[in-house]
Amino acid sequence: MILALAGGVGGARLARGLARILPPEELVVVVNTGDDFEHCGLHISPDLDTVTYTLAGRENPDAGWGLAGETWRAMAALEELGGETWFRLGDRDLATHLERTRRLRAGEALSAAAAAIARRLGVAHAVAPMSDDPAPTLVDTREEGRLAFQDYFVRLGARPTVEALVLDSAERARPSPAFAAALASPALEAVVVCPSNPPLSIQPILSIPGVRGALRRSPAPVVAVSPLIAGKAVKGPTAAVMRSLGHEASARGAAGFYGGLLDAFVIDRADAGLRLPGVAVTAADTIMRDADASARLAEAVLRAARGAGAR
Amino acid sequence: MILALAGGVGGARLARGLARILPPEELVVVVNTGDDFEHCGLHISPDLDTVTYTLAGRENPDAGWGLAGETWRAMAALEELGGETWFRLGDRDLATHLERTRRLRAGEALSAAAAAIARRLGVAHAVAPMSDDPAPTLVDTREEGRLAFQDYFVRLGARPTVEALVLDSAERARPSPAFAAALASPALEAVVVCPSNPPLSIQPILSIPGVRGALRRSPAPVVAVSPLIAGKAVKGPTAAVMRSLGHEASARGAAGFYGGLLDAFVIDRADAGLRLPGVAVTAADTIMRDADASARLAEAVLRAARGAGAR
Repeated sequence: MILALAGGVGGARLARGLARILPPEELVVVVNTGDDFEHCGLHISPDLDTVTYTLAGRENPDAGWGLAGETWRAMAALEELGGETWFRLGDRDLATHLERTRRLRAGEALSAAAAAIARRLGVAHAVAPMSDDPAPTLVDTREEGRLAFQDYFVRLGARPTVEALVLDSAERARPSPAFAAALASPALEAVVVCPSNPPLSIQPILSIPGVRGALRRSPAPVVAVSPLIAGKAVKGPTAAVMRSLGHEASARGAAGFYGGLLDAFVIDRADAGLRLPGVAVTAADTIMRDADASARLAEAVLRAARGAGAR
Repeated sequence: MILALAGGVGGARLARGLARILPPEELVVVVNTGDDFEHCGLHISPDLDTVTYTLAGRENPDAGWGLAGETWRAMAALEELGGETWFRLGDRDLATHLERTRRLRAGEALSAAAAAIARRLGVAHAVAPMSDDPAPTLVDTREEGRLAFQDYFVRLGARPTVEALVLDSAERARPSPAFAAALASPALEAVVVCPSNPPLSIQPILSIPGVRGALRRSPAPVVAVSPLIAGKAVKGPTAAVMRSLGHEASARGAAGFYGGLLDAFVIDRADAGLRLPGVAVTAADTIMRDADASARLAEAVLRAARGAGAR
């Protein structure tokens, strides 16, 4: 069984590749919920939705979030009301937030709501939040002070300079049942850290008490995919955030961010030649333009994991 | 200044007529919020929305709720998710609920949220909830026991037999600032009880402490319009609810429901000949098929009030 740790679009695309080559019972995708927030009364889980929509083959391939073929009638009306339209809620996407919120208000755990929605959308593989406890990431910025994550990320377009992440909530959260079970499972063959933003998307998952220790103790190899290619991210502010937090904005910097957790590291061919002490580095095509490219990268990642596990 | 007490569609249509013939500063429409509920995290105020949409000329003329030209993408997606679709939320209508909920969560009173939304939709006249306090009406039914209002009214299609209304919350609520100000205003010329369901839509408003006393003490005449024409309602379960609560399902029964509050009563021409002790009864065309018919009825209602006030 493979455990994948994912943020938004990069994580979703590698998860899609893993889902292509693994049967449902052999993959658990655990998703960052540090980006979750309540907006106009609705519980919004941006990364869970991106992963779920992508696994369902319904994602908007251009935006990196939301549904394909979406319409925007509600947003147009909200604009007319002078409401807050910086976080774009598509008409069909709204149904996901309504249904998740209804389930949470009825007392369901986020895990259960996420699983029910994914099942209904036709996702066969397991998608689970990192935690059922609220674990909002706060962002300390140079220009705007402390911000809620989506205020920083969407409302302000990730433009403020990130000086620190506040992960206090994650540090008090418990892993979701599926996450805890995967970490403890004797069937765990590898942990895949998807090419998501290391500080913004993966660090919240790793900040949950017990997670780093379980990864270190687990006999299963940990393999990460670099989200940076020749120092640049395919999408999003990864390079800038890495730099402003004092890390090198490069594949090497990303590996360094994960400290001693990694057994293997998959970098893009553009970065071929990178060596890291104690880590098996392999190069592959890491840009996942379509589902086939995702599946090829997933194959390379599992090969890298098997290689590292056999050492 | 005229104070109108309104529920949903009948109240909205007479309010539209009053708004046609009165300048904005001379009309306050106070709306039942006993039907309000939280649904999928959103604060929904069905009667406030029906009145606001109708005053804005944007109402769906067929349904008696919702917006003209509405689309249903979110509901279709919610259906696919197996969510609760019995309360139909149109795509543009959703924006109203999102914006109201956002404002309430930010600490605004319902009055302020309702006023801001009405203004944005182009409504010049004052629309106010009966109270800023939550005042949900509960319905004791023979077949299903105690129900939340919308469970009874929409989910179960008003089919269960109403044995009693539970108005404990209204009986602890305070009138909204606009309602209290209108009741206390020396400029108050008449109070118009719109042709809404007397027990379901008007009784909650009258149950707020101080309201009945203020209406009795006020020198302004109270004029009601019968919601029943030849024993039938234009729309909705008024007749059945009146009967099951022990009232006659007729114009006479409606007048009796308001007890000693009425100075004048406007009935449909179909009921002409009705006499009530101490109440000036006049007949008019009370079916408001369009805005012109609403305005004509509003004229008749104000004439009846002036006649009663002059006695």
